[in-house]
Amino acid sequence: MATFVMQALGCDVAAINTVNFSNHTGYRRFQGTRATAEEITNLWNGLKSSYLTDFSVLLSGYCPSAAVVNAVGVIARELRLRSELSPGDFFWVLDPVMGDQGKLYVAEEEVDAYGQLAGQADLVLPNQFELELLAGLEVGSIGKGGMKSCVEAMGKLHATGVSHIVVTSIRVEGQGEDELQVVGSSVNSKGEGRYFVVKVPKLDCFFSGTGDMFAGLMVARLREECEQQGTLRQRAWMSDDGVGPADLPLARATEKVLSSMQMVLEKTMTARDEQMAHFGQSPGASIGGLDGDQISTEEDRRYLAQTQAAEVRVVRNQKDLLEPDERYKAEAV
Amino acid sequence: MATFVMQALGCDVAAINTVNFSNHTGYRRFQGTRATAEEITNLWNGLKSSYLTDFSVLLSGYCPSAAVVNAVGVIARELRLRSELSPGDFFWVLDPVMGDQGKLYVAEEEVDAYGQLAGQADLVLPNQFELELLAGLEVGSIGKGGMKSCVEAMGKLHATGVSHIVVTSIRVEGQGEDELQVVGSSVNSKGEGRYFVVKVPKLDCFFSGTGDMFAGLMVARLREECEQQGTLRQRAWMSDDGVGPADLPLARATEKVLSSMQMVLEKTMTARDEQMAHFGQSPGASIGGLDGDQISTEEDRRYLAQTQAAEVRVVRNQKDLLEPDERYKAEAV
Repeated sequence: MATFVMQALGCDVAAINTVNFSNHTGYRRFQGTRATAEEITNLWNGLKSSYLTDFSVLLSGYCPSAAVVNAVGVIARELRLRSELSPGDFFWVLDPVMGDQGKLYVAEEEVDAYGQLAGQADLVLPNQFELELLAGLEVGSIGKGGMKSCVEAMGKLHATGVSHIVVTSIRVEGQGEDELQVVGSSVNSKGEGRYFVVKVPKLDCFFSGTGDMFAGLMVARLREECEQQGTLRQRAWMSDDGVGPADLPLARATEKVLSSMQMVLEKTMTARDEQMAHFGQSPGASIGGLDGDQISTEEDRRYLAQTQAAEVRVVRNQKDLLEPDERYKAEAV
Repeated sequence: MATFVMQALGCDVAAINTVNFSNHTGYRRFQGTRATAEEITNLWNGLKSSYLTDFSVLLSGYCPSAAVVNAVGVIARELRLRSELSPGDFFWVLDPVMGDQGKLYVAEEEVDAYGQLAGQADLVLPNQFELELLAGLEVGSIGKGGMKSCVEAMGKLHATGVSHIVVTSIRVEGQGEDELQVVGSSVNSKGEGRYFVVKVPKLDCFFSGTGDMFAGLMVARLREECEQQGTLRQRAWMSDDGVGPADLPLARATEKVLSSMQMVLEKTMTARDEQMAHFGQSPGASIGGLDGDQISTEEDRRYLAQTQAAEVRVVRNQKDLLEPDERYKAEAV
């Protein structure tokens, strides 16, 4: 997902896969392998030995172990070192994939690894739960504390050295049920956050890969906005202090990213509903495993079919990635 | 390469990687791993157990061992079985990657594996050397025998059951130095080939990935042309006997594929020359490995830089994939 959306927006990508699975884990069953830290490091060493190190952005996502997180950290530090004389030449976007909605899906030691590493990234993309983990807050505290506690947690993350943060969705008490809030911030020269929020309608469907979709689109759009505002030569692509929260490149990029995503996800929902309307009418055609699983129940099959039907229609809707409508506006918090 | 060009043309792709290397082997050094047959089979079993088998086309490319070739053959046969009642619903494009210009780069037993398997594919995409291997001819015989011996060899491959063949480049005695000939054929209902040739200017540069680029573009374009000519419900998407060689969907697809490729490769050459004009002027910037290789010579570095400079600019020129000029016309042989 991340590779494709970056490529669709014109980025040359060298992808190092951290897992090699038959399908996403939303299906609740899969085959394949997780990369070890040694495999990641070998691939990086291979790139280095051919001088293939001319990367302007690193996007790091799901890591299957703390050792892999640390191997990614080494890559980031070596790329950073390489750009020491021209700091804007390297930018690290870190998606600290650890869990969601209060549930951890990595080992505890991986949380520690991210805690030590996140401060070195330029842009961190946690969800609400991951922000709580990174800020050392009690799980659920942002939900209770509302926007104020979200901003406080982001302030703590800024204080570790992170220039830009986008919290990819927050759910707080009193918030509208059918609304999703995305909160972002870029620090000024004093290290103070400039906070903004973008509100989008919540879609009634579980999609897999939307975190990677957000991250991939953000890489391309943030660089584009920073180029337009002339900040690519600055350390961490920092904007002048005069730029207000809603006018930050990060805010503009978030608007575009969310518009693209909503457009593709709405079309995915429509296609899903059409597909599921035919479920069971043509056994062996639209679904129909070969001989993989003889014992699956009707309920099981319906779940798998629903999961497939909700696969994000990103390839056939790439026009929406390139040319999103102007739908949402960032507001200062 | 193959995955991206298919996605760019709107195909949803489930990719099973047969190698996981840091870079292409044209650099003459790389790190990483080759997939085992067991890993390929595990991933396929994973897809099956979630009923994710609704594939209309299989494109198979480089396989690191004969065992992997056979594992791919099993996938192809299972997908074929699944489409028995509606034969056009599955189409196998086989790129029998074995070597080039008289030089084998896989083990002998892999040549045997392809020899046994190729007849089950719908479209085979050999180069001249691979065609000689598949047809059981002496290496170099097509070069000496010219177009006539190329057509004879293709006839032998048709006789094993292959409906469509494109020989991705032939070099025969007497052929213009600056010209590349691509020869294709689709059988009629009697199993006789309908042969055509498309001639394109030869570019003075070694590119890596062009075989996969050809194959990926061909998948998308052939399906599109067959849809337009209404043959997608036929076994192996066969055209009526009344369709002449130069009007075959395969011929039309080849014209478009080659136009896209030439447009992208010409731009790649221009960019390569610009990039190499600056070679050595900014040490540590455009190239500059970190600490991977302390002993590389100036000559070695230049080779690596040239190889990188010739990386096909496919992502930034995806418009040329979508909208190729009408440059080349197939002629009946």
